[in-house]
Amino acid sequence: MTDSISRRELLRTAALGSIGLGLAGSANALNLEDSDRVLEQLTAGPQQKAKSMVGVPFERRDTVRLAFIGTGLRGRSVMDEFVNVPNVKIVAVNDTVKEKAEKAKAIVEKAGQPAPAVYVDGDHGYRELLKRDDIDLVYIATPWEWHVPQAIDAMKAGKHAATEVPAGYTLPDLWKLVDTSEATRKHCMMMENCCYGWGELFALTLVKAGVLGAIVHGEGAYNHDLRSILFETKDEGLWRRRHHTLRNSNLYPTHGLGPVANYMDINRGDKFDYMVAMSSGTLGLYEYRDANLAKDDPRNAEKYIAGDYNTNLIKTAKGRSIMVQHNVTTPRPYDRINLVQGTKGIYRDYPARVYLEATKANHQWQDVEQYKAKYEHYLWKEMGDTARKLGGHGGMDYIMCYRLIQCIREGLVPDMDVYDAAAWSAPGPLSEISVAKGSAPIKFPDFTRGGWQGARESIPAEKKVVA
Amino acid sequence: MTDSISRRELLRTAALGSIGLGLAGSANALNLEDSDRVLEQLTAGPQQKAKSMVGVPFERRDTVRLAFIGTGLRGRSVMDEFVNVPNVKIVAVNDTVKEKAEKAKAIVEKAGQPAPAVYVDGDHGYRELLKRDDIDLVYIATPWEWHVPQAIDAMKAGKHAATEVPAGYTLPDLWKLVDTSEATRKHCMMMENCCYGWGELFALTLVKAGVLGAIVHGEGAYNHDLRSILFETKDEGLWRRRHHTLRNSNLYPTHGLGPVANYMDINRGDKFDYMVAMSSGTLGLYEYRDANLAKDDPRNAEKYIAGDYNTNLIKTAKGRSIMVQHNVTTPRPYDRINLVQGTKGIYRDYPARVYLEATKANHQWQDVEQYKAKYEHYLWKEMGDTARKLGGHGGMDYIMCYRLIQCIREGLVPDMDVYDAAAWSAPGPLSEISVAKGSAPIKFPDFTRGGWQGARESIPAEKKVVA
Repeated sequence: MTDSISRRELLRTAALGSIGLGLAGSANALNLEDSDRVLEQLTAGPQQKAKSMVGVPFERRDTVRLAFIGTGLRGRSVMDEFVNVPNVKIVAVNDTVKEKAEKAKAIVEKAGQPAPAVYVDGDHGYRELLKRDDIDLVYIATPWEWHVPQAIDAMKAGKHAATEVPAGYTLPDLWKLVDTSEATRKHCMMMENCCYGWGELFALTLVKAGVLGAIVHGEGAYNHDLRSILFETKDEGLWRRRHHTLRNSNLYPTHGLGPVANYMDINRGDKFDYMVAMSSGTLGLYEYRDANLAKDDPRNAEKYIAGDYNTNLIKTAKGRSIMVQHNVTTPRPYDRINLVQGTKGIYRDYPARVYLEATKANHQWQDVEQYKAKYEHYLWKEMGDTARKLGGHGGMDYIMCYRLIQCIREGLVPDMDVYDAAAWSAPGPLSEISVAKGSAPIKFPDFTRGGWQGARESIPAEKKVVA
Repeated sequence: MTDSISRRELLRTAALGSIGLGLAGSANALNLEDSDRVLEQLTAGPQQKAKSMVGVPFERRDTVRLAFIGTGLRGRSVMDEFVNVPNVKIVAVNDTVKEKAEKAKAIVEKAGQPAPAVYVDGDHGYRELLKRDDIDLVYIATPWEWHVPQAIDAMKAGKHAATEVPAGYTLPDLWKLVDTSEATRKHCMMMENCCYGWGELFALTLVKAGVLGAIVHGEGAYNHDLRSILFETKDEGLWRRRHHTLRNSNLYPTHGLGPVANYMDINRGDKFDYMVAMSSGTLGLYEYRDANLAKDDPRNAEKYIAGDYNTNLIKTAKGRSIMVQHNVTTPRPYDRINLVQGTKGIYRDYPARVYLEATKANHQWQDVEQYKAKYEHYLWKEMGDTARKLGGHGGMDYIMCYRLIQCIREGLVPDMDVYDAAAWSAPGPLSEISVAKGSAPIKFPDFTRGGWQGARESIPAEKKVVA
């Protein structure tokens, strides 16, 4: 937890990527040798104390009893999806702000379902909620700094944890998620909704059908101009801008990386091996502030250290390369890139387009429309209309929620497990450390402790007949 | 020169990036410490022996007397442009293949101009051509391994050298170009035609007009499926594929990087500081060969080491970041990217599009058409029709040739000098070294030896009234 860090400690430690190393609260001044030693320990990871959660299925449950921690904009938006997924019962909600928890309760009631219990009692009010014995799964949609402690508390209380992205942003925290999932035998899933986007699942279908050939390279990004949101005096503006004062890193790597990880079978036959990161200068938030805040606004005293562009290159154990990018502080159209290159073709989003060598398309991008009948993912074929009508992020939120519940109801292995949550979130701390070391290459921890080597599925590319 | 390297030496040295370090022909086995020491020396560079060529204008010449070394596909294509530029006299041509030199001669004659002298006498026949005293400028369009020795010989013979891209691909060679230009007071220009592309000059105009704000990030690439060309038994197929057996690096960085360097005033107030590189695996050429060559084709014995994707991240002294990419061995549409991001807007090519915050376009890309009247570059406004009609690479080749001749005729400083040639080519060797060291950050040499700090122009964004 970084909440208790004093500004002085931050200034001393930021240059070493110490938040990523989990050392920001350290009482002693750090030097580069110390941080190298700590990094080595964190790359190796703690000794494994319990069996792996790789391939562990959910226990079947006909009705899934769900609770929410965090009912701000994101929590309520996801709740809007879940009330439309059959066989879900939302039994309890928690927020630090009573008004937000009540709004969440109203969503459930409006859907004609029994009102959930409401827990509102300060920062740790969620712990009362976790004492209930009628909860299967806790959905965590709080500010980033709360994902780890709340997911850990949920698993320790015997609940599966579904956390918003990123799962965590320090290496010790990511290891804690892994260790807790293994010790408690509860899943900790990071709800990476972009993995369920139309384009991402179309690309996954292409990859799994082999039409792109062997996969050699991928790209993903979170390039989204958030300046006005970051300076709002409500919602994300209350906490998200602060992270730009704490870390010079890829603050939000998973939307771009998660889908690419699925194309490349990361933790399912391949793994992230090492990465480098580079940050540009930090101009965007300063310029925006100068143009939009009053002279006496206290936010004029904030010091932003996160570079406008943070670009990462990741190498996988099987020799694939990945480019991941983060930019939320300069004016530009939204772009998650979502590119996957194989030896027989390439897919790229924004807009969705494909080039398949076999079609002899003479090096020209083709609209995906002509391939829709053949390669649209079965989840979108089956429930795309419903998903689009509900509309959360173009429909992918509904597909994600539906699929999570389906996995529990059918006793399947979750599409994404704690190892994915850790690996996809790891470029946060690793990019911070790489940038602090002048773009030095940094090894990924193997959160699976060897379990990455077996081939297995993430999101199924084809519909399974349920036994 | 790498021509004399034995395969055994290559296998021994490739892992250390030794070609980039200029050590591939070394008699002794190299270790990592040796290569670090050599790299340090090459980053610092040799002692300066003559005055800088920064800002040195051409001597005025009303008619520019031009000679060609290399009259293959590229040489003859550029010649097609030059015969249409007023006040150019092509006095001599050279090639190792008589038929190609004769074809070049015919181009000049067909344009109604006096036939040039033809020099055809083996690998070093060009040296006879260089003995002439009626040549102002030599255009070099030979295979990559010849650019450096021929440019050096040309300058030593009192001629300005205009070389095709890349200027060189070892650090010692790039320093030799710089030292020779300074010693001979002759310019060595790398003819980076993409700097004169419609989109590149449009973007440059936007940048210089300030409408993109302060520049924070740029991207460029050479992503062009060359597999069929690389396996041809003529033209580039005769020599270019071989480079994929020699170096695991960004083999062709300048088309993407040159224009971005101009947006960022590289060597004109900013400079490349350091870079990292990552290569993907090498699958494309092998798959293509398996599918297309006969079983007994001797090329089946070739070993390719250049990764399909080589991606670089470059940091500038002023804190800007650049992503540069090279991929010529997998199926995909052509893309040089050509992206420039500022604090007030962004431009990206393929297709040309722009987002200017001031237009309140609600985060949507806009077609450039509506900005054409205001921001199309003056060279394209003035001679775009002529350029497109001649058509070399969409017209940019003519603009480049016209502008080179204009600079000489008006006694101007060239748009691109030997320092640009060296800096833009440097990601070739630097990426090789970085990849060999597991994506370690590598410092750029400062080829200007401090001369980068003064503000000055590259290609002018606005037309100057000639005195």
